[in-house]
Amino acid sequence: MRYSNLFGKTLREAPREEVSVNAQLLIKAGFIDKLMAGSFTLLPLGYRVKEKIEQIVREEMDATGANELLMPLLHPKEVWNETGRWETAKEVMYQFEKNKKEYALSFTHEEIVLDLIRKKVSGYKDLPVKIYHFSTKFRDEPRAKSGILRGREFLMKDLYSAHTSSEDLDKYYWQVADAYLRIYEKMNLKARIVEASGGVFTDSHTHEFQVLSDQGEDMIFYCEKCDFSQNKEVATVKVGDKCPKCGGVVKESRSIEVGNIFKFGTVYSEKMNVMFTDKDGTRKFPYFASYGIGITRLIGTLVELFHDDKGIVWPKAVAPYNVHLISIQDNEKGDKLYEELLAEGIEVLYDDREIGPGQKFNDADLVGIPVRLVVSPKTGDKIEYKERTSDKTELLSLEEVLKRLK
Amino acid sequence: MRYSNLFGKTLREAPREEVSVNAQLLIKAGFIDKLMAGSFTLLPLGYRVKEKIEQIVREEMDATGANELLMPLLHPKEVWNETGRWETAKEVMYQFEKNKKEYALSFTHEEIVLDLIRKKVSGYKDLPVKIYHFSTKFRDEPRAKSGILRGREFLMKDLYSAHTSSEDLDKYYWQVADAYLRIYEKMNLKARIVEASGGVFTDSHTHEFQVLSDQGEDMIFYCEKCDFSQNKEVATVKVGDKCPKCGGVVKESRSIEVGNIFKFGTVYSEKMNVMFTDKDGTRKFPYFASYGIGITRLIGTLVELFHDDKGIVWPKAVAPYNVHLISIQDNEKGDKLYEELLAEGIEVLYDDREIGPGQKFNDADLVGIPVRLVVSPKTGDKIEYKERTSDKTELLSLEEVLKRLK
Repeated sequence: MRYSNLFGKTLREAPREEVSVNAQLLIKAGFIDKLMAGSFTLLPLGYRVKEKIEQIVREEMDATGANELLMPLLHPKEVWNETGRWETAKEVMYQFEKNKKEYALSFTHEEIVLDLIRKKVSGYKDLPVKIYHFSTKFRDEPRAKSGILRGREFLMKDLYSAHTSSEDLDKYYWQVADAYLRIYEKMNLKARIVEASGGVFTDSHTHEFQVLSDQGEDMIFYCEKCDFSQNKEVATVKVGDKCPKCGGVVKESRSIEVGNIFKFGTVYSEKMNVMFTDKDGTRKFPYFASYGIGITRLIGTLVELFHDDKGIVWPKAVAPYNVHLISIQDNEKGDKLYEELLAEGIEVLYDDREIGPGQKFNDADLVGIPVRLVVSPKTGDKIEYKERTSDKTELLSLEEVLKRLK
Repeated sequence: MRYSNLFGKTLREAPREEVSVNAQLLIKAGFIDKLMAGSFTLLPLGYRVKEKIEQIVREEMDATGANELLMPLLHPKEVWNETGRWETAKEVMYQFEKNKKEYALSFTHEEIVLDLIRKKVSGYKDLPVKIYHFSTKFRDEPRAKSGILRGREFLMKDLYSAHTSSEDLDKYYWQVADAYLRIYEKMNLKARIVEASGGVFTDSHTHEFQVLSDQGEDMIFYCEKCDFSQNKEVATVKVGDKCPKCGGVVKESRSIEVGNIFKFGTVYSEKMNVMFTDKDGTRKFPYFASYGIGITRLIGTLVELFHDDKGIVWPKAVAPYNVHLISIQDNEKGDKLYEELLAEGIEVLYDDREIGPGQKFNDADLVGIPVRLVVSPKTGDKIEYKERTSDKTELLSLEEVLKRLK
């Protein structure tokens, strides 16, 4: 992509009304734009990061045997009434009436999935069901001040599974938990599995995936030595206690929730009268669970964790492009190298603008692509190579650059 | 994909309440499920068709130099008030209030795009802007009886462009029209460019892309000899007239609208006070246009046009899989061939179920994948090859099959 043809360029100033680092940097660098509080357009750069994250998530979901599909966002009241959540989730749900019909917007999809399973599953051979989608969620958040960490409208991957037995659900539940940990690891996030409360989803405890960060809205107690972690809301320990798992010391930290998984058992199936015929001919309620990862929230989390005073520092796996190419003075060398890199399958953001090198360097730091390449009259037949995380520049041949990029 | 692991299998009966062929076949074959009138889940098979169509559209949009992004679906009333469409489009728009704030759901995105352009464009160097997204649209349709041809919630690709001059807009407008024709051609649709009225979008005439079909809700006059076509709503000719372009005979047909493009000039820019500084230093209103293709509607259109009494007959470019593999009696041969085909990069739906061959053959015809492969004790070391559009079966070696598929 030629930067001259990119919609959504960098801004000189971060918007003053934004208090969160993620919103400041993402808006300034041209990744997102705010339509209203809690609602953002993903500009082309931000859209590419979203696509990268989704592909990582998709591969891990598919590997668990789950099927991708797409469910509606506009829901009839009747389905939400079956579990009582039309009333209990009224605060966060957008509900309205048009032409004498009452609707809600998707704040989650459990009821919609169970309505679907009710139609599609008759016997034990139809189970387990493992289905997921990437879709939009709407939640009326009273405070929407954390940039894209907490939106009124946001993107989520939600997976749902239904099983013949509690044991089968358990097995899959922890298989998904492992997949989640691999997903975070691929984008350099160190996430902890944390015991938590179920909010409007369930009275039972659930598991959250939390990343330690001062910017987080959650508070967790955790053991540095082992993986013991509890959300403060449900904690049975306090700071300084002995870790009940390994005897280490319990610490405290703010953290950002980057995923959660809910084991519902048969509660929802019973409420919605979803049944299957088991091997022995008896009618039973399937065991049900749901698993969420906020995709736009992940973008924000990554920025909170990976930035410096110059801008964003994207992990390789989710960077919008592999390389930020800058040409200085005339574009002849730059144009040639741009085509050569594209031909090698490398994703390039090419700053071909007629502006000074200082602004180009600043923008490259702000945008945060892992590798910066520069060609200028000074570089001769070599290319200046620099990683975003390092101050070292090197003059390399094209072959050497390609080797580094692979 | 193993059919045994696919969510959304074929049904024995088409649902009785569905009057449209597309809904009957798509539901029966397991591509979609109806949540409520005008609202459907894309099941895994349907989701794959959507992805194929989107990729065809994406490539053609990118080739025009457009940037992909993603805009919100929940909009503040204020933006819609600027053009007056909060009132004039009230009938189709879902509007509601929550916590003293008024919102609308996206029934289109012109106002949102212009709000974005207003923030991002200052001078002529920032133009043209060409941005598009694949996103959800909501329209409260009084009649939602045409399956996924007309939904209350549906998927659309919408592209928006803004230009410094009417000439530049004109040039791009027809460039997009050409891209649209290529898109339809790639999925075997013969679309005509038709003069039409602008509905709630504009008072000026616009252009629709129409595919002749008895199931269409539109009526067009057209010339068989040349590309002259007019929507009945705005027609200046009648059946039997001489074609004003080539002298041929004007005919009449029902048709399905598969796309539309709107040239707004500066009307919207003026209403929303979107301006740029031109080369000569004067402040001007950019020329604006929008371009839509209904993605879910295309799925329905393809089924209306490509089916027979046994089921769907997908065009190759949009089929959910390249090959429908059936194993008869035991799965040993089938499992082996499945892996071999996957290793060659071929997308395979593999019916590995323990059911009779008759049902497998019927399901293959219903699902409509272009090529059916069968392995059984009878086929020896060969593979039975059959195209969905033909009755001829052939016994081929794996090498021959691969050659045919490439």
